[in-house]
Amino acid sequence: MGLKVGIVGVGPVGDRLVRVLQERKFPVDGELKVMATYEREEILADRPFYVHKIDETVFKGLDVVFFAGREGAKGVSFQWGREATKSGCVVIDNGGDFRMYPNYPLVVPEVNMDAVTKDTRYICNPNCSTIQMVVALAPLHKAAKLRRVVVSTYQSVSGFGEVAMEQMKTEAAQVLAGQVPEHNPSVFAHPISFNCIPHIDKFLPNGYTKEEMKMINETRKIFDEPNLLINATTVRVPVLIGHSESINAEFELPIDREKAFEILSDPKKSPGVVLMDGPASDPAASNVRNDPNEQQYPVAGDLAEEKYKDAVLVGRLRNDTTVKNAINLWCVSDNLRKGAATNAVQIAEEMLKRGLL
Amino acid sequence: MGLKVGIVGVGPVGDRLVRVLQERKFPVDGELKVMATYEREEILADRPFYVHKIDETVFKGLDVVFFAGREGAKGVSFQWGREATKSGCVVIDNGGDFRMYPNYPLVVPEVNMDAVTKDTRYICNPNCSTIQMVVALAPLHKAAKLRRVVVSTYQSVSGFGEVAMEQMKTEAAQVLAGQVPEHNPSVFAHPISFNCIPHIDKFLPNGYTKEEMKMINETRKIFDEPNLLINATTVRVPVLIGHSESINAEFELPIDREKAFEILSDPKKSPGVVLMDGPASDPAASNVRNDPNEQQYPVAGDLAEEKYKDAVLVGRLRNDTTVKNAINLWCVSDNLRKGAATNAVQIAEEMLKRGLL
Repeated sequence: MGLKVGIVGVGPVGDRLVRVLQERKFPVDGELKVMATYEREEILADRPFYVHKIDETVFKGLDVVFFAGREGAKGVSFQWGREATKSGCVVIDNGGDFRMYPNYPLVVPEVNMDAVTKDTRYICNPNCSTIQMVVALAPLHKAAKLRRVVVSTYQSVSGFGEVAMEQMKTEAAQVLAGQVPEHNPSVFAHPISFNCIPHIDKFLPNGYTKEEMKMINETRKIFDEPNLLINATTVRVPVLIGHSESINAEFELPIDREKAFEILSDPKKSPGVVLMDGPASDPAASNVRNDPNEQQYPVAGDLAEEKYKDAVLVGRLRNDTTVKNAINLWCVSDNLRKGAATNAVQIAEEMLKRGLL
Repeated sequence: MGLKVGIVGVGPVGDRLVRVLQERKFPVDGELKVMATYEREEILADRPFYVHKIDETVFKGLDVVFFAGREGAKGVSFQWGREATKSGCVVIDNGGDFRMYPNYPLVVPEVNMDAVTKDTRYICNPNCSTIQMVVALAPLHKAAKLRRVVVSTYQSVSGFGEVAMEQMKTEAAQVLAGQVPEHNPSVFAHPISFNCIPHIDKFLPNGYTKEEMKMINETRKIFDEPNLLINATTVRVPVLIGHSESINAEFELPIDREKAFEILSDPKKSPGVVLMDGPASDPAASNVRNDPNEQQYPVAGDLAEEKYKDAVLVGRLRNDTTVKNAINLWCVSDNLRKGAATNAVQIAEEMLKRGLL
């Protein structure tokens, strides 16, 4: 016996949802039901799936539906998410439509699982760049109370979908062949290959992008700190998978590199975090990957390793000496997995464990 | 009549020095004398040069010698820089050896040309990532006095030399062919293609890299503000040429986006800056590239355009609402040109103009 599970969306996040459900042996009763805007066959997680056309009747009989969404994509959940709950499903939605609605919990299981109650039928998955930042900062926030965060991101193209990954590869091949890359403005506003674009999602009247405001507003909601000071600059970089973030964090209470190291290297205090930093104060701490012969720090390339694929990797921990109780850190995670699919499946797992699903 | 000019170094910065001297019609008497560790022929700026072996006698008769240096390279200037001044040359040194020595002016012509006096025989060119930041911040510092800077960089591989550009291209071709990139640890500590590496130059005991401390210490020296608060994270990104920087700047005196826009769009107040930002308050201001139909901001790819090749491009100007008198900006420049060769040649031009050479 298990749950009848549906997935809406067949892009990279849909693919990762299928993989993560399999890998984590999520108790699926029968076949996953994959849905999208039109009927077809699609390969997900290396095997063919019949894709059902989404309509009012398609959710019937499902226990939980994952909406794959996509970074910045809007509208699918508005149109179909509530429809799914009307059919009796629990919805876990990676899309952005409902994240800031007061009655829709926005959940990172390591941080605020208690926002989900027995009455919750619709849970939002935060934006990829938000998830990894709050996993890294939550244990420090708990210890020393965050005051202000200044973050600059290095975000891979896969958040925009398969088309962006293909576009970047095409452009890169053109550059390597000595050609001028053929720009496709329907993907990014500039060529992305061998370039950095400080522009993710739309611009708002205040000069920030929506992606930047997502990091600010979603973090406040997840931490339940409506006045937390956050300043974000989000940048697209020519990386296929994996977001990196340069985070400067200022706290109310005393904290320094040593204390942050002790917290982030303890898997009980810092669930979901793998600390990859210099010489460990406690080399036995299981969160720490440490080679005493060289300075350790995470990079997006590390996410290809099985043991890091669902982790939030943290490194470059150091004191910011320009202000009291401040540290810098560098945080890396797979935007399609922990930044999307894995986080969504973890929510469902935790709901099961708590008898909420 | 002109000056006898020498160049030490035949990497990308040496190449750019030859180009910039030509393009700007620097008054060179006769042929440029190119020097390196051994005698050979090299192509610089698309033409062959005889390369003289560097020794005690080679500087004789030269008026000015440019040391091409390279990001992070050490030792060449220690060994030969003072030798050159003993032969009566003025040295303009892009290397890092003497930058923090008290009697060696560290100069960005738009900012602190007055550090060069009639007795100066040895001038240091700052680090690439420092130059573009101080050009962008100097006019704002003048108007509102900087208090604290938090900067995260997006630095291209060319700062490490030709070998890094080739390494990245080789790796990228391997990735595009579906192979695992062959890592070359003598260039970067990790594969750089489709990756971001928060590690430029060596690590120091305080957890910062030398590159980060260069941005901090050099900026303080150039602004003559020994206590200016600067917090830096420097990151290598898979870009061939052009560094980008996400800068959060806090000031002592009132300043906001409007005022910063007015200052940075005025070429008299902000020499060397081209503001590429949203709807201009004064569309006629000649520093501004502005298309009213879309949000403007600079990217490294823009540096291929003739009109931007020597500029410090600034965009993404916006108020940081988390603290008083703070703004964010995004700053892009060619690390081989304004970040190295162009800045060095501008120093020489300005010395000529002032009768110091």
